[in-house]
This record gives sequence, structure tokens and C-alpha cells, in this order.
Amino acid sequence: MLGDSAITLVAGETGGLVYRGYDINELVPRATYEGIVALLLDGAAPSRDPPERLADELRRRRALTPSEASLADAVPLGLPPLEAMRSLVSLLGGPAWAYPPTRDQGLELVAKTPTLLARYVRRSMGRSVVPDRPELGHAAHYLYHLTGEVPTASHARALEQYLVMLADHGMNASTFALRIVLSTQSDLISGAVAAIGALKGPAHGGAPSRVSDMLDGVGRPENAEAWVASALARKERLYGFGHRAYKTEDPRAVLLKQIAHRIADPDRLAVAEAVERAGVAALRKKNPEGRLFLNVEFYGAVVLEAVGLPRELFTPTFAVARTAGWGAHALEQAADNRLIRPDVRYTGPGPGLSWPGPVR
Amino acid sequence: MLGDSAITLVAGETGGLVYRGYDINELVPRATYEGIVALLLDGAAPSRDPPERLADELRRRRALTPSEASLADAVPLGLPPLEAMRSLVSLLGGPAWAYPPTRDQGLELVAKTPTLLARYVRRSMGRSVVPDRPELGHAAHYLYHLTGEVPTASHARALEQYLVMLADHGMNASTFALRIVLSTQSDLISGAVAAIGALKGPAHGGAPSRVSDMLDGVGRPENAEAWVASALARKERLYGFGHRAYKTEDPRAVLLKQIAHRIADPDRLAVAEAVERAGVAALRKKNPEGRLFLNVEFYGAVVLEAVGLPRELFTPTFAVARTAGWGAHALEQAADNRLIRPDVRYTGPGPGLSWPGPVR
Repeated sequence: MLGDSAITLVAGETGGLVYRGYDINELVPRATYEGIVALLLDGAAPSRDPPERLADELRRRRALTPSEASLADAVPLGLPPLEAMRSLVSLLGGPAWAYPPTRDQGLELVAKTPTLLARYVRRSMGRSVVPDRPELGHAAHYLYHLTGEVPTASHARALEQYLVMLADHGMNASTFALRIVLSTQSDLISGAVAAIGALKGPAHGGAPSRVSDMLDGVGRPENAEAWVASALARKERLYGFGHRAYKTEDPRAVLLKQIAHRIADPDRLAVAEAVERAGVAALRKKNPEGRLFLNVEFYGAVVLEAVGLPRELFTPTFAVARTAGWGAHALEQAADNRLIRPDVRYTGPGPGLSWPGPVR
Repeated sequence: MLGDSAITLVAGETGGLVYRGYDINELVPRATYEGIVALLLDGAAPSRDPPERLADELRRRRALTPSEASLADAVPLGLPPLEAMRSLVSLLGGPAWAYPPTRDQGLELVAKTPTLLARYVRRSMGRSVVPDRPELGHAAHYLYHLTGEVPTASHARALEQYLVMLADHGMNASTFALRIVLSTQSDLISGAVAAIGALKGPAHGGAPSRVSDMLDGVGRPENAEAWVASALARKERLYGFGHRAYKTEDPRAVLLKQIAHRIADPDRLAVAEAVERAGVAALRKKNPEGRLFLNVEFYGAVVLEAVGLPRELFTPTFAVARTAGWGAHALEQAADNRLIRPDVRYTGPGPGLSWPGPVR
């Protein structure tokens, strides 16, 4: 047990996920992403949702200053987007971000991260940045900023629900890395940069695009069973199955499946469902005691495809969602700060070995 | 207990520090920094020290490619150096650094970090980068690269001994942040960037320059007692005293004091010794049960001053030393990798609260 946190309850045994008292099944149908930012950063639900003032603060913060824009444009093209995001957010740092972290800094991180990413993506495609559309909420504006087109209400809402559900997840690796950085009284940007680096790993957030690759490989629903059997025979992993924290269904996976039913292409959905059935059956047969369920990446990939995001933007979009949680955890860490320094057992040789060199 | 590590034994109760079986008191008089890089990255002492081949590999790697140089020059001037270093190292990343980390990547990190820093510092002073001097070892070249002048043998060796003793220190916050990042199968640059962000905090490596400021404030040895008494009366911290891991003398503090005796200005040394005596006496009087001793920052500051480093480069120099340990910990983490995800206790409200907004 590392300590206490009042932000998110991950009830792995029962499949529950609760942000500050609000169950994810209560939030996903109702909350805007701005409402979740208020809940996480301010420590309580806004009096109503959307929270006008906070939405306004985010909107005002999302444009880059000319000097931020020119720094962002110094990051070389051709990098995987999360690699680029690590440098983009690092270059956003400076004296304004001095420890301790503040709510304003948290809002700034939430507001600017998608802008930095979208600018990089547009530049990579040889496209210019599109002008701000202040009437669009956070999720819709993110999609618009990437594609240059105002998304349908249905796509914008589906992406918003994805952002709501990915906004925090307790002490996962990226958040833990951020809290360790903050525990030395370092700044929020240093923490966010650490978190982005951790999220980049395929064992955390870096793998959702592999679900899409897998569905491509299967191609048609009737191939699913043979495809799964052959992958398992080759000792390959099935992507989108299993989570360290959950011993039952990940509640987000259930919600994402519902969203996929609303917006995904029926043919793609049929492939996904066939792979789900075949995968669950095969994994149960292999290990009848095992409790292996879909994780957030499986229908997450189907939903992100359906709103029009290319797969290399799946993990960066996860990061965009998680900035709210990172900000909240930074504030909580700093509120009662103690250096995090774990004990380890030394298993090396010695002590008492002699060095192969003279005194110099 | 987080797990096992065969790299460094920090024996806090007895004041011992051991790298892979070699006591720090054995290493500091004898080892070159290149020898320590071999010990930490290769897992065993070189057959002799300096290790010719490894020294050569580091030397060949320390120059930047033209594209690395132009990326480095995109980092804006005027940042605190560790803030700059976070972005400089992040921009060094890219496909060549793909997981898993390798010995070559570790060498690259050790070799390039001082070059990137020196380039930034020279640029900040409006000076051009000095040409490589292949005859200089790692420590001497770092000083030369910063100042443009080849250091005396005595200064170069003193700095080298500082780098040797700061090269690793078990599972401190920066190393732990790096290992969490690596535990998601993310890359060494992402880990190093997280580590730099953690080192930046004053509760880890971000405070040694405050020792110099304190010694300036004291001014003369005869002021030490009154200065310490007045600082403690104002509830101010004495910088350079106390360490989370050590319940007795930090062995590095003892070694650094010896080095300070060799190279520091006698007047400055007299002030430091007077503050040490007054501080230890006052802290003992305040808390007779307490076992508070000097930490590495106290005489570390005196030594770094004496070799000619300005105080804003103290923490970056610490980071330059620690790159060897970061590389070693990345290799160890990846060799038997498991996601690090701690348990925390949820102390927030609910579950079961109702959200202030309709289904949308």
C-alpha cells in the first residue's frame, strides 16, 4: 500500500470505477469532459454541467502564444506522436510552472496539450493550423483541430465519453511516475513529461492501435475463431484482453462497447464482436480458472476509429484525456507532500571487492 | 520492499555505499568515471581502469550530429539549466531509442548529456562551442566543454571523483521514476526525461546551490554560530544536513570533505567547517536523540565551486553523473520487466453520488 488518494477508486474485484464518489456508469451518460475536469481538479462536482466558468477558462487557454507556437514548431517532424508530445509538453515548461502546482497550471495542461498535438499532426500532414472555434467544447474542438472539420454531434459526444472514461485511473504507471516527480517538489510539466513517457509503453497506453491491426488481420467475422486459435498456437498475445487491476469486466469496456454500437460501422463491429467471443472462449478453455475479460483498449480502438482518428493518434488521445487526472494527482501529491523513495533489496556481489586500478 | 536490485547497496544504518560489490571508499580514490560506467552498465568491473575500449566508445559518442545540434539549439535560452536539460534530452529521442534499452543507448546517454548541456550553457553566454579534445577523459572534457579551458589535473580529478560518487544511489526518486517508465516498456529517453524531471525537485537534487548561498550568507567563520542559531530560530532549514536514507554519516560527505581540503580556497573551507560544527552542535542540542549528519550537498557544493562551476550548474552536474546509474537501472528493469503499479487506499467520498446533469 503506497498511501491514500481521494481521487479515484479502482475496484478491481467488482469492476467498479469511481471518480470522487461518482460511478463511471453515472458519469459517462451524463458528464461533459469539462465537468470531469472540474470534478478532478476542483475536488467536487460543478454545481451544474457544463460548468460555464471552467469551460470558459479552458477555452481561453487553448490557443498557443506566438512563442509557444514557435517552440512547438521546433520539434522535428516524423516522430511517433507520443514521442513528439513528450518534447512539446517539455518545451511548454518554464518559470510559470514553478512548484507547487496550481489549479490554473492544471487547466493550462488540459487546454494546451491537445492544441500542441493537433498543431504537430497538422504540420506533419503539410496542413496549416485551423482557426479556433470557440463555440466547440473540448472534445469536439480536439477533433476539429486535428481534422479541420467540425465533427458531427454524435462523433463529438462519443469522443467526449471516451475522454471522460479515460480521465483518471488511480495509481497507474504514468500517474505514479508523475507523483514521484512531484514528490521531489519538482514542477507539473516535469511530472506530465514523465507521465507521457510512461504512457508511451505498450504495457500501459502504447498498444491500443494493435487492436485495430488485429481486427484488420481477422478481416471478417467468420475468420475470428480460426484467427484466434492460430494466434494462441503461435503464443501470440490477443490485444485488448486483460488488465492488471481488474479481476472481472472493466466497466469502461462495457461502456465503450455500447458507444461502438451507436457509432461504429456495422461490419467492423461484427468483426470486433466475433473476435471478442472467440477470444473469451479460447482463453477460458486454455485456463478455466482465469478471469480474463476485455480491457479498455478493445472497444476503445473501435470507437476511436469510428470518430475518424487514425490509429497512431489512439495513445496520444488517451494522453489528452489523462491530463485531467495528472493535474488532479499533482495537486493531491503537493497538498501533503513527502518524498517517495521505496526500499529495495540489494542482491549484487560483495561488499568488499578490490578495484582493478591504482590510487590516482 | 519494492523488489531486488543488484546495482547499488545503500546501507543507511552503517553509512555504506557499494556499487556492485565495490565500496565507495575503494572506488573514489581509484576509479575513473569511465571505469564506473563500465561497472554499472556492463555489470562488472573492467579488467583494468581506465577501460580503453569503453573510454573510446564514450569519446566517439560525445559529439552531436548536425541534426542533434540543430534540435538542441531550438531549446529557448533563459531556462534554468535542468529545465533545459529535460527538453534537450527529450529532443535527443526517436526511433533509435526503441525499447528495450541497450548498453549502446546507455553509453549514448552518458556521452551526449554533458555535450547537450555544455552547448546550451555556451549558447546562453553567447559563446561558441569549443572543438572536441579527444585526449581528455569524460570529467575533464565536461569542464573544458563548459568553460572553454582545459582544467588543471587536480580540478579534473576532483570533479571526476564527484561524478564517481554521484553515479548511482539505489532507488532514489529519479531512478524510481525512470524504472516505472521503463516498466511500461517505454524507452530509455522517456525514462531519462522522467528522471531529470524528478532530480529537478529541491527534495532530491535541486537544492545544492543553496549550500553556496548559505555559505555566502555566513561570510566568515566567526559568524557561523550566530547565523545558525538565528536561522533555526526563524525555523529555516540548514541546507546540506540530513538524508532520508542515512542514519549516520553519508560516506560521500566524508569523501567530499577530503576533496574540499585538497582543492578548495582555504577561506571558503574555513566558513564551511565552521557552519558544519555550528550546525551539527545546534541540531544535536535541539534534538539529542536525532542523528543528523552532513549530506552529499554540503561539501559537494564546496567542491563544485572549487573546480569553477557556477552554482546553477550544480544540479545539472549531478544529473550528468547519474546518467550512468539511470542507464544501468533501465537495463536491469528491462531484463526482467514487470509493470510497476502500486496499491493505494481510496479515501474519497461515495461511491453512489448523483451527477448534476442530464443524460446527454
